[in-house]
Amino acid sequence: MDQKAQASAGPSADERSAMNEAIDRALRAARESGKSGIAATVLKAGKVVATGENEVHLQCDPTQHAEMVAITRAAQVLGTTDLTGCVLISTLQPCEMCLSAFRFARMERVIFAATQAKVPEKYFAFPHLRLDDFQRGTNFTFVAGVGEELVLHLYATGDE
Amino acid sequence: MDQKAQASAGPSADERSAMNEAIDRALRAARESGKSGIAATVLKAGKVVATGENEVHLQCDPTQHAEMVAITRAAQVLGTTDLTGCVLISTLQPCEMCLSAFRFARMERVIFAATQAKVPEKYFAFPHLRLDDFQRGTNFTFVAGVGEELVLHLYATGDE
Repeated sequence: MDQKAQASAGPSADERSAMNEAIDRALRAARESGKSGIAATVLKAGKVVATGENEVHLQCDPTQHAEMVAITRAAQVLGTTDLTGCVLISTLQPCEMCLSAFRFARMERVIFAATQAKVPEKYFAFPHLRLDDFQRGTNFTFVAGVGEELVLHLYATGDE
Repeated sequence: MDQKAQASAGPSADERSAMNEAIDRALRAARESGKSGIAATVLKAGKVVATGENEVHLQCDPTQHAEMVAITRAAQVLGTTDLTGCVLISTLQPCEMCLSAFRFARMERVIFAATQAKVPEKYFAFPHLRLDDFQRGTNFTFVAGVGEELVLHLYATGDE
């Protein structure tokens, strides 16, 4: 995969643990009415600052992706919109909206499970653009596919 | 400007009126403490459904751009995350986050005042990408620069 050439060092033990916990939440949310099986976490210095699940249908709000919920909560917990040094964990490759929020919050590292190449286009607003297109000329890094095999079935059809 | 080749028909009377009102709100917000001088509106069939101003600092939430606030409110007013047929108006070219939310909400027309080429890079998460890069292969249209001369001074320095 082209992405690997630019990918950063693998997940730390804390990051892997946070991913496992996010995957558990995604699997649980997928079984609950009105929720989508997508979960995210913001970590700082290896500790969980905030978590979120997709609440688009629950809140009737197209902006409430899991990563957005987690970023909003992290900013409120930390009392600043500057999340420098925080790491974003998501069970699904962040879409362009979430990736932009991540950058506006000055985060530089994102780790995700399911990758764009293996999920329906509907999870992206501009599916003709790839993570590489966004990464070019910036300083963020990512680790793709961590635990992917555990969540891909959640996103196979794009139904929610 | 390259953008013009792909730009759509100019604003209707209702759209122009909504832009004038948004510009008034942006100018007012720029004078208020904790606010940024960016305002947005969602229109449906020429009528205002929802408005919003940038509340990033007010809410301590990096996701609360004016367009996000307006889209969230529009979904709540209309009781659906599907804003097909609605038009987004903004005093500043929507960033990648807001443009993605616009697309997830199935909106297809956006009208904005200040254009990316004339404002600091900080208003965009991925300034190496342009509106044309996002538009390629999609069906949304935009009208750029409507009332631009009235708001450019708000965005000249990037200070808020």
